[in-house]
Amino acid sequence: MLRTHTCGELSISDIDNEVRLCGWNQKSRDLGGMTFIDIRDRYGITQVVFNMDVDEGLCKKARKLGREYVICVEGKVIERSNKNKKLKTGDIEIIAKGLKILNESKTPPFTIEDNTDGGEDLRMQYRYLDLRRGPIKRNIELRHQVLQETRKYLDREGFLDIETPSLIKSTPEGARDFVVPSRMNPGEFYALPQSPQTFKQLLMVSGFDKYFQIVKCFRDEDLRADRQPEFTQIDCEMSFVEQADVLQTFEGLIKHLFAAVKNISLDEFKTICYDEAMQYYGTDKPDLRFGMPFKEMNELCQNNGFNVFDKAELVVGFNANGCGTYSRKNLDALTNFVIRPQIGAKGLVYVKCNEDGSYKSSVDKFFDQNALANWAKAMNAKEGDLLLILAGTKGQTRKALGELRLEIGNREGLRDNNKFAPLWITDFPLLDWDEEENRWNAMHHPFTSPKEEDIPLMDTDPGKVKANAYDMVINGVELGGGSIRIHKKTLQQKMFNCLGFTEEEAQSQFGFLLNAFEYGAPPHGGIAFGFDRITAMLGGKESIREFIAFPKNNAGRDVMLNTPSAISERQLKELGINLSC
Amino acid sequence: MLRTHTCGELSISDIDNEVRLCGWNQKSRDLGGMTFIDIRDRYGITQVVFNMDVDEGLCKKARKLGREYVICVEGKVIERSNKNKKLKTGDIEIIAKGLKILNESKTPPFTIEDNTDGGEDLRMQYRYLDLRRGPIKRNIELRHQVLQETRKYLDREGFLDIETPSLIKSTPEGARDFVVPSRMNPGEFYALPQSPQTFKQLLMVSGFDKYFQIVKCFRDEDLRADRQPEFTQIDCEMSFVEQADVLQTFEGLIKHLFAAVKNISLDEFKTICYDEAMQYYGTDKPDLRFGMPFKEMNELCQNNGFNVFDKAELVVGFNANGCGTYSRKNLDALTNFVIRPQIGAKGLVYVKCNEDGSYKSSVDKFFDQNALANWAKAMNAKEGDLLLILAGTKGQTRKALGELRLEIGNREGLRDNNKFAPLWITDFPLLDWDEEENRWNAMHHPFTSPKEEDIPLMDTDPGKVKANAYDMVINGVELGGGSIRIHKKTLQQKMFNCLGFTEEEAQSQFGFLLNAFEYGAPPHGGIAFGFDRITAMLGGKESIREFIAFPKNNAGRDVMLNTPSAISERQLKELGINLSC
Repeated sequence: MLRTHTCGELSISDIDNEVRLCGWNQKSRDLGGMTFIDIRDRYGITQVVFNMDVDEGLCKKARKLGREYVICVEGKVIERSNKNKKLKTGDIEIIAKGLKILNESKTPPFTIEDNTDGGEDLRMQYRYLDLRRGPIKRNIELRHQVLQETRKYLDREGFLDIETPSLIKSTPEGARDFVVPSRMNPGEFYALPQSPQTFKQLLMVSGFDKYFQIVKCFRDEDLRADRQPEFTQIDCEMSFVEQADVLQTFEGLIKHLFAAVKNISLDEFKTICYDEAMQYYGTDKPDLRFGMPFKEMNELCQNNGFNVFDKAELVVGFNANGCGTYSRKNLDALTNFVIRPQIGAKGLVYVKCNEDGSYKSSVDKFFDQNALANWAKAMNAKEGDLLLILAGTKGQTRKALGELRLEIGNREGLRDNNKFAPLWITDFPLLDWDEEENRWNAMHHPFTSPKEEDIPLMDTDPGKVKANAYDMVINGVELGGGSIRIHKKTLQQKMFNCLGFTEEEAQSQFGFLLNAFEYGAPPHGGIAFGFDRITAMLGGKESIREFIAFPKNNAGRDVMLNTPSAISERQLKELGINLSC
Repeated sequence: MLRTHTCGELSISDIDNEVRLCGWNQKSRDLGGMTFIDIRDRYGITQVVFNMDVDEGLCKKARKLGREYVICVEGKVIERSNKNKKLKTGDIEIIAKGLKILNESKTPPFTIEDNTDGGEDLRMQYRYLDLRRGPIKRNIELRHQVLQETRKYLDREGFLDIETPSLIKSTPEGARDFVVPSRMNPGEFYALPQSPQTFKQLLMVSGFDKYFQIVKCFRDEDLRADRQPEFTQIDCEMSFVEQADVLQTFEGLIKHLFAAVKNISLDEFKTICYDEAMQYYGTDKPDLRFGMPFKEMNELCQNNGFNVFDKAELVVGFNANGCGTYSRKNLDALTNFVIRPQIGAKGLVYVKCNEDGSYKSSVDKFFDQNALANWAKAMNAKEGDLLLILAGTKGQTRKALGELRLEIGNREGLRDNNKFAPLWITDFPLLDWDEEENRWNAMHHPFTSPKEEDIPLMDTDPGKVKANAYDMVINGVELGGGSIRIHKKTLQQKMFNCLGFTEEEAQSQFGFLLNAFEYGAPPHGGIAFGFDRITAMLGGKESIREFIAFPKNNAGRDVMLNTPSAISERQLKELGINLSC
């Protein structure tokens, strides 16, 4: 090794030892006859001292080092007179006896420090320099730890890590596939997997009753902020299980990760069914770090002559505890928040519960103190609280009020990054009506089983059918989801039928799975987690991009590699394709 | 859980317990009033007994079970009267009290047993059934273990598991890329990585001084037997290291795997330089489970009037110890072996060292007993040995003799699958002359560093330049290879220059790496192992396909999915491509 130690490990116990360190010149200072160099590597920073009186040549050489030069320093460890408590190695320094420049460096386009002056674009173009900065480096180290701890837990629980293929068959169901032209089979294509779903089900048919894989998946979507065309999934499946077994096992995984990585012991996860989540929080991924559940108010509010309420399918509100002192300006801001096009409410009704027991409302004209007192009672409000109420169609109003609830959470500092409120959402609908295509879509995917007792409804009232499907949600973020699968051919065919597949389409796309179900498929179910998302949550951040070594931008481009890019005519010819654009 | 235990865990200590097992009906036998079912899962087989006298209905139900039906059996554990020592659970059986059919099964297209009647094609089409068979199942379990042990070792050694992108930039260097058309950037393409080579080097520039990843790689080659278009690599890189550090670290990895997986303690690896390997074994991946090194015989054999020898660039042979008793028929078979077109020798010269001290040779006419005795002496041969000699051009003759050496190893049973002879091959040439393209190719890849002292030869005699490159070989199989990399821009440019890149080509394809080298790139080196290959070796088999859950056939097809396959007109249109075929 070119070094005897890293830049993060020397301490008082190494005093008088001769050492050799390699790293980057983080910073140098000339003080009279001395030059101090901070040498940095992945593990830390160590101070090196060069003395004009001791070795003038060496000191002069040190004075010429630019930032980010790669150097190898030899010398003796001594105790520092003025110790640096902020540094792991702050008790010692190295008296340099030798200095070798391993490589030079141009001045970096931005400063390599925790707080950099580099903008997003520049940092992405020079991602290899951005990765040197402490915050990004620690994210990548965290990701490593989460990878290892995930595998450790699942291995211990008897899961087998089995790799499934990356060059698979394109199927039009769901999001768009990335495809790969086959040179050996001109005119034909592989697809990159959106998930290993059918393969893990085949592995269950094979008898590998506990499978996992941390695996790259690919989705050719119009990218939204913080979506990546390639992403990493913790993919799992189990046989001979019921829903409760899957939930227990993977609640265990997440608890293990929080304990191992953050030293946080999570309480038992709440379970809320989909209908309740929608009713009380207006979303299937409620943030339960704070309360403020919805109260449906139709009975209390309607038929009072206030047209907005009277005409609404749903009148619904929540008690913003302690927000009764919000100013006119605050309340206007909340109104502006809900009437933005992304939220789409028509207006906001508020009721302030004053300290003197009176009520002040935006609908004073229509509702007297008595009526408002009844609302307050229904919402368990007391003096100093604020009631916020929306009205309109059921779906949109719930959604808008859910957003407003989160906004109040933000304003009141109730969404603390160091607090975690995990829960399971269960009993999702099996199907989702697609207005554009005028047909049913699978809410999760076509392999999700309906609740046994709802199977007859598939023929008569498909929208009512509940699925054995579940999502894990923490702090309003969906970390993963799964289901107990269909394992009988007839039911799978019925499901394809509901989704509008002809028998031929089902056979040509998923024939291998339907066939497999005829040869002793066991009952099975599983889950998949967004690994990037879990890591970001454990890292206390919202953007997954900061936890990916080489991410793509929102247009799906790698700006460092400058790709996607043109390929040669020869490649196109060999692949049997032409550009049509 | 639908079960209380697996089919592999019940023993005498469970007697009298009520249990519930789930699994597949492996086999059933009706004996008078009793029916015996062997129920199988991933963990083992347990015998279940149904008794007509106890519960006629249940027993009749059991008698109707077909092979591979998935069942759930409830009952009491009892001690068996005639124990089955071959079975882990052979001391007990279950007296059935309940039987539930979880799923039916058609008769499988081949028997689900260790030795099956299914041919390769059928087994691949129904791979999910093939995976139920003991040998394949154990291979997949072994692969899991090798995955976990690899990560355990590297994590312990301080390596960070860092995921690199799968959608990257196509570069014409090396094998063909698989490409992925970009819908969002019409006319442009991503490529799938042949290896994460440049990314791991960028990670070194970033300061992550120990990186690893077990990662899918892709190569669009004309497939040979036992090559897969997608394969798995253990990819590693380290900074501030010299060659010896890399060898030591990864010798440690392989030793760890053999110890953890096979309980075998490997001796220290031999190191042989490339030139010696070629000289003594005719290959850069010699099988050292047995000796029989080559002896070059030009001085001893030439200028004796035997034209074949006299005209040859190289006369070379080895002593096939103990093969002096080979019959005429054996020797003819060896001659036929070497003159096959794949080997391409013109003929084979042999010398039998008889027990009486005399010599019998195919070239008796040209060489007297005295001459043959000299040959024997030069090859350390004694009575009962057999000398085998080839002559011709150097490269081809060495290669042919290398194949003959392996053939003798096979015939003599010297290539024992339970014996392991690991070694490092070092000091490879940097460049390889490409006759077809009339230019130099990189023998490993363009990022491999030349030996410091050979850099001037890059201008004057490129073929003589040795590289800081190494391969790990066990039993004649190359498991991995790597090098100390170039880390300075000027040297990297010189290398591209040697390979015939214009400056513009180098910049447009590898500009990101050349730029990165300007910002403090540390000295670094690494290695990549073929994970499928390592697993196959640990499993004692030669074919990697048996260690991949869902492999492709030699035409790159997945016959189970029937892919690659056509995609829709709509997909083609969205991607901006047409089929030209």
